[in-house]
Formats: sequence, structure tokens, C-alpha cells
Amino acid sequence: MTAPFTSLTQFQATLAKAPQANQTALQGAKDRNGQLTKPPGALGRLEDLAIWYASWRGSDRPAINTPQVIVFAANHGVCAQGVSAFPPEVTVQMVANFEHGGAAINQLCKTFGAKLDVHALDLDNPTVDFTTGPAMTEDEVVAALQAGWNAVDPAADVIVTGEMGIGNTTSAAAIATALFGGDAAGWTGRGTGVDDAGLARKIDAVTRGIAANHQAITDPLQVLRCLGGRELAAMAGAIAAARAHGIPVILDGFICTAAAATLHAVHPGALDHTVAGHLSAEGAHADLLAKLGKEPLLNLGLRLGEGSGAALAIGVLQAAVACHSGMATFAEAGVAGA
Amino acid sequence: MTAPFTSLTQFQATLAKAPQANQTALQGAKDRNGQLTKPPGALGRLEDLAIWYASWRGSDRPAINTPQVIVFAANHGVCAQGVSAFPPEVTVQMVANFEHGGAAINQLCKTFGAKLDVHALDLDNPTVDFTTGPAMTEDEVVAALQAGWNAVDPAADVIVTGEMGIGNTTSAAAIATALFGGDAAGWTGRGTGVDDAGLARKIDAVTRGIAANHQAITDPLQVLRCLGGRELAAMAGAIAAARAHGIPVILDGFICTAAAATLHAVHPGALDHTVAGHLSAEGAHADLLAKLGKEPLLNLGLRLGEGSGAALAIGVLQAAVACHSGMATFAEAGVAGA
Repeated sequence: MTAPFTSLTQFQATLAKAPQANQTALQGAKDRNGQLTKPPGALGRLEDLAIWYASWRGSDRPAINTPQVIVFAANHGVCAQGVSAFPPEVTVQMVANFEHGGAAINQLCKTFGAKLDVHALDLDNPTVDFTTGPAMTEDEVVAALQAGWNAVDPAADVIVTGEMGIGNTTSAAAIATALFGGDAAGWTGRGTGVDDAGLARKIDAVTRGIAANHQAITDPLQVLRCLGGRELAAMAGAIAAARAHGIPVILDGFICTAAAATLHAVHPGALDHTVAGHLSAEGAHADLLAKLGKEPLLNLGLRLGEGSGAALAIGVLQAAVACHSGMATFAEAGVAGA
Repeated sequence: MTAPFTSLTQFQATLAKAPQANQTALQGAKDRNGQLTKPPGALGRLEDLAIWYASWRGSDRPAINTPQVIVFAANHGVCAQGVSAFPPEVTVQMVANFEHGGAAINQLCKTFGAKLDVHALDLDNPTVDFTTGPAMTEDEVVAALQAGWNAVDPAADVIVTGEMGIGNTTSAAAIATALFGGDAAGWTGRGTGVDDAGLARKIDAVTRGIAANHQAITDPLQVLRCLGGRELAAMAGAIAAARAHGIPVILDGFICTAAAATLHAVHPGALDHTVAGHLSAEGAHADLLAKLGKEPLLNLGLRLGEGSGAALAIGVLQAAVACHSGMATFAEAGVAGA
């Protein structure tokens, strides 16, 4: 499906008319869950997860057969501020690694039977260094949102959006600071592993980025335009497209969550079809998830990006849905209740 | 392989000569991990998990192809004390459910490609109510340990031991109290969901069980005999057999961990080839894992047994090993380092 917007105003209107969860499927799944051969609540969060998934798929007994992981890659002008432990050419090198099957996300997709699609977004044309002004023009951010929207396979039954972009934890920290306020230091972490001096440069870049864009960041989508990157905008576009297609999304770490947060800031229900896949080791991720009211499924200290934490959570969601849809009821199995 | 013991003394001697992790594979896996295309440490606990797994498999680049989940079922005389929300006949009914593919563990095994073996242990002959004296004779507990040992497929590359046995959280609480001391109330939880009166009966049964067996419980294997059940002893036997075969084990919830704790109490290194799959919602599980120095991989509020939490963690282990063994190195991928 081609993206149904050609401006930020139209994208915002698209978010406003996003479909809601299916209440009949929701109730049907709750009823079914209560009849399965287990003590009430004994599958813990797997039960809530399956019921949530059912409500967005419009079926009280859904299945997961076609997970799609989409990794968007882009380059960031803010790298000029010395904000990353890795040089910017690693972005294109890692895209080649994805294409040759050598990255972590390739192995995770194989493990959980997910299709992996990689979209390199204008890598030769980094965004403007946001410490000097808006990272993108409106045309550029809309093109990235469209790229994200169009990357979603309507036949997918769960979506993970991941990213690769040297410098993008700095962009994500700037977005979080602009959306939620507070000191830049509170939202800025070590990313791929900068030292203390690098961290100080990141905090300084975020602070100056907010100041340089102060007049332009009048709403959440302007925050995305001025402080984001193409891969962050593409993730936001893909998350919105998944909603339009009725496909639940597993959010990844700090950068993905910052991109998603711009949608939440536009419309508080915009992320109802998403679940937090994991808590990243990137310091501010917990605070960001708290702002969105999301409880992560996993907490294993990952901080890689690429959609890796969310891809790991595909296994948890598959397990939840398999239990919900595959288990016998007390009546079917002839098991006595409590 | 037939169990190499016919008495508790011989079983204890078997534990003492258990093989250790392969130090060459351990170092090789650490070296490999440092060269993979990711920032150092960015895969968090997945890195430690893969290195640990490699060390027990004796290969710096292992694979997981044949997980085995073994569920042991048994009945408990202590059910006479009104300690469960479910009647004891549910044990045999759930065994039939496992055999027909209708339980949660069946769906989890399918999701992660694990073989499921179910062993019903003398269901028509419950253990003695341990509030009146030892639950098992030495012959009975040795037979259960042997059943567990013999259930392990030497061709498996990861093992999950699970259980089904109405009344067995009471047995597990009694074992934990006997091994680690403290009030029975601190080790006793709601299991499948008893009400306050049921919980009071459980605490009372544990307290009286400890008193009734005070003279007999002179060592950890006597604790297992006097307060355990056949499925707990079988899990202990299977965990020990896995060690002998060089197969890592994922521990499940409170009951599995209590069974494992008897081995730990015999020999502190006896669980080095095991990892805690999850933190159960059963109250005392966290304390029990802390006693064993184990950090759970998952915390999703499960409290079902059947090996379900550990089976869910198979996916995490598969992902960890797939990343470790499948990723390209910086040199292979032509990616610049930090």
C-alpha cells in the first residue's frame, strides 16, 4: 500500500484516523483464555500478550506465521560533533553485513523465522548536523516516513522496526529531551560505548541541538524533522503503517522507542498496537518506556539496535500466541477445574 | 546410558566426579565473541549465555538443534492436608493432556522445536504424606533418580526438566526450608492459586513435615527422599545425567529449582551447567535462585510448571548461540572497529 500522505499535516491526519483494536476478538480471546488447561493467570504476561495480539488481529485464536523485521539505515550530520565510538562509514559497512547475513539481526531472524528487509536511506546524504539547524527539510522527513510506511508487508503478522545509523542515539536523546523536557544529560547515554569525554560531547550536542531548533520544534513531528534522522522517521512511518494494516509491532530499544514516542506525542493511542520488546542497557530507555506506559518483555542488557531486542521478543510473542491458540480447554481435555 | 548408581551413596559419588566445563572452548568462545560485528558487550547477557553454553558443549562455535523437554509427573500424599487448589486426579488428567498435545508445554515445545518426553512416575502410588514421616523409601527415591537419569537423551543439546504433580509446591517449599532454614512461611507460596486458608494449611504442612522428618534429614539427599516427590527426584536425576553427558540445562520454576537445590547442597558446583530460565511468580523462587547464585533470564510472571518458563527460555538460548556462532567477525565483514 502506498503511503496515504505527502506532507506532515496529512501524516498527522492519518494517525488521527488509525483503526482501533477489535473488541469482539478481545472479549473472545479473554473468554478462551479462561477455559485453557492451566490455573487462572499461570502463564502470566503471556496471557495478556496473546489477548492483546488477538485484539489487533481481529481473531480470538490468531496465529503468527509471517514476522517481518525491517531495518532502516541512515547517516547523521551530528557525527561531526564526535558523538560516536564508531566512524560514520560503519553504517554502510553494516548494511553490507546485513545483506550478506553476518549481523546479529540476521541470526535472530533465522532463529524465529522472520523475514528481514533492509532499507538503506540515502546513506551518501547524511542529515544536517542538528546543532546547526533542522536535520531534515519537510520533503526529506516525509520521504523517510513514506519509505517506512511502504516497507511494511501487509501480509506480515508482526512487525519489528530496527535501525542502523552511527550517531543515532544522539538523535534519539535529542528527540526525547524535546518531547519530554528535562536535562539533556538525563536522556543521553553511551550508545555503542563512548567514553566520558564522548558522553560529554553527546550531551553538549543535544543541548545545542535543542537550542538551535528551538523555534522550529513546535509540535512532535517537527521534533522528528529537526532532531531525527531518516531511519527514525522511517520507523515511525512503519509503525503507523502497521497500525493501518492491523499488524502488531514489537518496539526495540532506545532509538526505536524515541521514534515511536513522536507518534505517541501526536496522539496518545498511536502506540496501542505496540508492545515494548525489551529494556535496553542504554540508560534512558527505562524512562522513555515509562513515558509511554510500556512494560518491556525482556531485560537482558542488550544495546545493539538493528531491531535485535525486539526480534528476540518475537519468540516470546510466538510462544504466547501458540499457547493461547493451541492449548486444549478444560472441557476438551477432560481436566478437572480448581 | 543406564544410571550408574543403585543407592543414594553411589548417586552422591556420581555428583562428586561430574565433568567440568571445557576451558579451551571457553577461551575460544570468549575470543570469538570479541571479534563479532557488534560493539563490545552490546548483546548483553546473550554473550555470556553463548560463552557459557560453548564451554559445556566443548566447542567455541556450538549449535542448538535438538532441545529435549522432559516432564515428570507424580502424586503426593501430602495432598491429604488440603494443600492444593486442584484435586490430585488432575495429575493423571494433565498427563493425558500432555500426551494429546493440549497443554502449554506442548505448544512451547512446538514453538522452539523441542522434543517433549513425558514420564508418569507410579501415579497410582502417591508418596507418603510427609507430615507423617518420610515421603519415600531409599529404594523409591533411587528409582525416581534413575528414571530421571535414564530419561535424558544423550543426543540432546539442551535439556529442560519440568514437572506435573498436584501438591508439589508444598514439597518444594519443605525442601527449601530444610535445605536453607528460616520459617516455612517464607518458603511457601500459593502454587496453583490456593486462598488464604489453603496457604495456611500449606505452611502448617511444611512445618509439621520438617518436624516429622527431623531425625531422618541428615543430608540433602535425605531431604529429597523425606520431603520430595518422585518428579522432584527425577528432575534431580536428569540434571545430573545432563552434566555427565555435557548437556546444558535450563532450570524452570520453584519446584524444579528446589529439586536442583538438593544437588547444589550436595556439591556447590553441581549446577554449573545450568542456567535459570525464568523467575516464577511463586513467591519464594527469587530467594531460592539467590541461594543458588542464579540470575533468571526471563521474568514474565509465569507459575505453571510443566517446564514452561524454561521452555520459553530455550528461544533466548537459541538466539544467543545463533548470534555467537553465525555472526561475521569485523575482519570477515570488512567493518571498521571502534
